[in-house]
This record gives sequence, C-alpha cells and structure tokens, in this order.
Amino acid sequence: MGLIGRKEAFLRVLVILIMVLTACLVGFDAQTKLLFYSIVRKATFRDMNALIVLVWIDSAAAVYNLLQLFRGYVLPGSKEDLTSNYKYLAWSLFLLDQAAVYIVFAANSAAVQASMFAVTGESSLQWMKLCNRFTRFCMQIAGALLCGYFASIFMAVISAMSAYNLFRFYSSKQFLLLKGK
Amino acid sequence: MGLIGRKEAFLRVLVILIMVLTACLVGFDAQTKLLFYSIVRKATFRDMNALIVLVWIDSAAAVYNLLQLFRGYVLPGSKEDLTSNYKYLAWSLFLLDQAAVYIVFAANSAAVQASMFAVTGESSLQWMKLCNRFTRFCMQIAGALLCGYFASIFMAVISAMSAYNLFRFYSSKQFLLLKGK
Repeated sequence: MGLIGRKEAFLRVLVILIMVLTACLVGFDAQTKLLFYSIVRKATFRDMNALIVLVWIDSAAAVYNLLQLFRGYVLPGSKEDLTSNYKYLAWSLFLLDQAAVYIVFAANSAAVQASMFAVTGESSLQWMKLCNRFTRFCMQIAGALLCGYFASIFMAVISAMSAYNLFRFYSSKQFLLLKGK
Repeated sequence: MGLIGRKEAFLRVLVILIMVLTACLVGFDAQTKLLFYSIVRKATFRDMNALIVLVWIDSAAAVYNLLQLFRGYVLPGSKEDLTSNYKYLAWSLFLLDQAAVYIVFAANSAAVQASMFAVTGESSLQWMKLCNRFTRFCMQIAGALLCGYFASIFMAVISAMSAYNLFRFYSSKQFLLLKGK
C-alpha cells in the first residue's frame, strides 16, 4: 500500500488544486458597500463562522492530500501484496480517507446552508437576506462552494479507490480473511 | 449479491429505527410561547427549511434501507460469487449506498448549521438567536440531530460493508479484473 497509483496521484493533485482555489476564493472575498447615509459595511468571510470553518477545513484537506501524495516515498509496502504487517497501515489509510471526505463534505454542506440563509433569509425567524446588497461577494462564495462540491466528489472517488485497494486483498469466500493465507 | 448478510440486516434495521426516531423527534417538535404582551408564537420545524428537508430525507433514507432489507428476497445472485451478470447490480448497490450516506450526512450537517444560528445567532449579520426563548424545542431538535449523526455513522459502516462485498471479488493483481476469470 506504500506506493501510490498514477490515477490516485492525479486525483489527489486535482483535489489539492481545487481545495486551494476554494479556500482562496472564500478567504480573499471582500466587498465594501455604503449602507444608508454614512455607514460603510465591509463583507468578508469572517462574518460567518461556517465560512471560517470551511477555509480551515479546506486548507487542512489540501495538506492531508499533499501528505498522502508523498506517502509513496516514505511508507513501505507494495501495491501487489498485503502482508499482515501492512494490514493495519492499509486499514488506517482507508479510514483516514473516509473520515477526510465526510469532514470536507459536512463543512461544505454547512457553508451552503449558511449561505442559503444569506440569499433567501428566513422570514419566520426574522433573519434578513443580505445577498441582495452584497451581490458580487455572494456570487464569489457561490462559485467557491461549487468548487468545494467538485473537490468532495473527487475525494469520494479517491476514498472508493482506497476501499478497492484494501478490500481486493481479502478472500471472496471467507469473512475478513486475507488472500495470502 | 442478492442475499443480505446478518450483520448488514441488523445495521439496516438499526438505521431505519434511528431514522424514524429522528424524523418523529423533529416533525412532532412544537413549543408555544407568549412573547411580549399578546403575541403568541408557535415554534415548529416548518420555521426552518433545513429541518423540513431533514424530515423528508430521513424518511426517504428509512424507506431506502427498508427496500434494501427486502432485496434478498427479490433479487437473484449469491454472496459467494460475482458473475458478470450481477456485476452491474453489485456496482449499482454500492453506488446507491454511497449516495444515500452522503445525502443523509449533508442534510444532517446543513440542519446542524441552521440550528447553530438559532442557538448562537450571528451578530455581524443581525440574525438574532431564538433558542433562549424556545429552550425545550431546541433541546429536542438537538437530540434529533445527534440521532441523525448516529444513523449517518451506521450508514457509513453499511456503505463500507457494501464496498467490501463488491471489491473482494476483484483480483488483487490486475486492475478491475474479476477473480473468476
């Protein structure tokens, strides 16, 4: 499991690029607007906790994928064989990939939900919409969230690949028995 | 793939029960409160779109898991062998399980984010918090969301099992080659 396949490496590079793009789109998004007579209001991602969390988690996911890219040079093992020494390593890589995609997906969904309130408001709770005033700001956030979903989909594909890389070494006849035995 | 394992059946029944519990906890949650002098306000899950969506998606997920429980009686195939006839069926079951867990997880995360606004408010956007007034209502929603996360975790385990049930039939030597060939 030490070596990394070419398809997986390509997908991970893609995810890193999209994650960095998403974090930058959200992080550097700002719009200043004159409200009423003399009140100047600047909208940034710091106005909403969900967006702050999204920037942090997307950055962390980019770093995680970068580390996974380089695991082929550091960790031992081969792609052809899964001896019981590397069984725990393979399982932890599988679980890490699963956890990463769920965390990124949850952060993205939470940010989408928070942004929906900013677009539509929630009249029954007297939360007013804000995107009619900060249109350019909101468009950029929307683009970033779309990027985030693309990255999530690619990470889901990567996690399916790591599941494939783990489970194909198991026997098809007996439950959780490695093939070599 | 037609037959369903005992572990998987147990997990699916568990998920169905928790999903129904979550949907009921959210759906039947209501609190009436006297605000100011004569304004009576009733809080229900219909005040927030995220909670309406959550109830629908949790109900759909319960029905989906119920259908999966009965697939053993309807669909052909065996657990011991994956002939190319049933390859597409096994792949679609795997993809359906993956999609289901992501959708449920996203709906739950969105509802948690929406509820966080009701608990803490977002002062920079002038969205006021509401849970200081509807405490019992909010506690019940919080319990429901916790249940929803437990259900998501069990569904993630089920989706890992369906990945195992698919990928262990593949060769460990060649890429995407079935073992029987």
